Amino acid sequence: MPSLTPRVVRFVRTARVAHLATADRKGWPLVVPICFVLDGKAVYSPIDEKPKTALPQGLRRVRNIRENRNVSLVIDRYNENWRRLAYVLITGTARILTRGKSHSRAVSLLRRKYPQYRRMAIHDKPIIQISVKRLKSWGAL
Amino acid sequence: MPSLTPRVVRFVRTARVAHLATADRKGWPLVVPICFVLDGKAVYSPIDEKPKTALPQGLRRVRNIRENRNVSLVIDRYNENWRRLAYVLITGTARILTRGKSHSRAVSLLRRKYPQYRRMAIHDKPIIQISVKRLKSWGAL
Repeated sequence: MPSLTPRVVRFVRTARVAHLATADRKGWPLVVPICFVLDGKAVYSPIDEKPKTALPQGLRRVRNIRENRNVSLVIDRYNENWRRLAYVLITGTARILTRGKSHSRAVSLLRRKYPQYRRMAIHDKPIIQISVKRLKSWGAL
Repeated sequence: MPSLTPRVVRFVRTARVAHLATADRKGWPLVVPICFVLDGKAVYSPIDEKPKTALPQGLRRVRNIRENRNVSLVIDRYNENWRRLAYVLITGTARILTRGKSHSRAVSLLRRKYPQYRRMAIHDKPIIQISVKRLKSWGAL
């Protein structure tokens, strides 16, 4: 298991946005900004109600994960003082949760981290679960 | 050609960081934060001297692009007021420039945008050129 040191965990937990790359079965990549929580050795990200052009199950990131579970996730900090740059790069495998205990727990954690979700029906929507397989950290975490 | 409206161009030009997804020939994706410039219908990103664990040509994003030219790039703004969220999502094809006119021009533009590059030997390093094939913008640009 990757080294989730306290410093890495703090950096990841306090970040408000991450960037998720998926790829379809032909290997065409897609990157999107996501809201997320870290819980133990997994990251959870909801399919929320920020306007989307497709229904949850038809969303490209969801289709990609159904075709190809391999994902890459980065949490980073930009600063004009480049000595303060930092990132945590996660390699993982993803699945789509539509219900169940992990789904409910993720909804609670997401609503604790993002008050914005308390008025959104994320409990009725799929949640992406990313199991952390490898983790690399760099810079001034 | 995608709609590079003045609003989209301004949003992209003023952003200091973007996120680039590449994938290897097996379709395993990789996402990294990048510094970049937009010039006409292409985006340029240097392989710079921020500490890397590999030599420029061995860097994973470079290897991925040599195996699979398809890339995805997102420039986004996060804000706790989710009515202010915005992104520009670019689908493109990438190549690695090691010298030549486009390479030199990109070096100049990068040094104009990022003073930090003026003391770095990015002119001796490869530059990723991304030709914009599709562009989607969303939110409060």
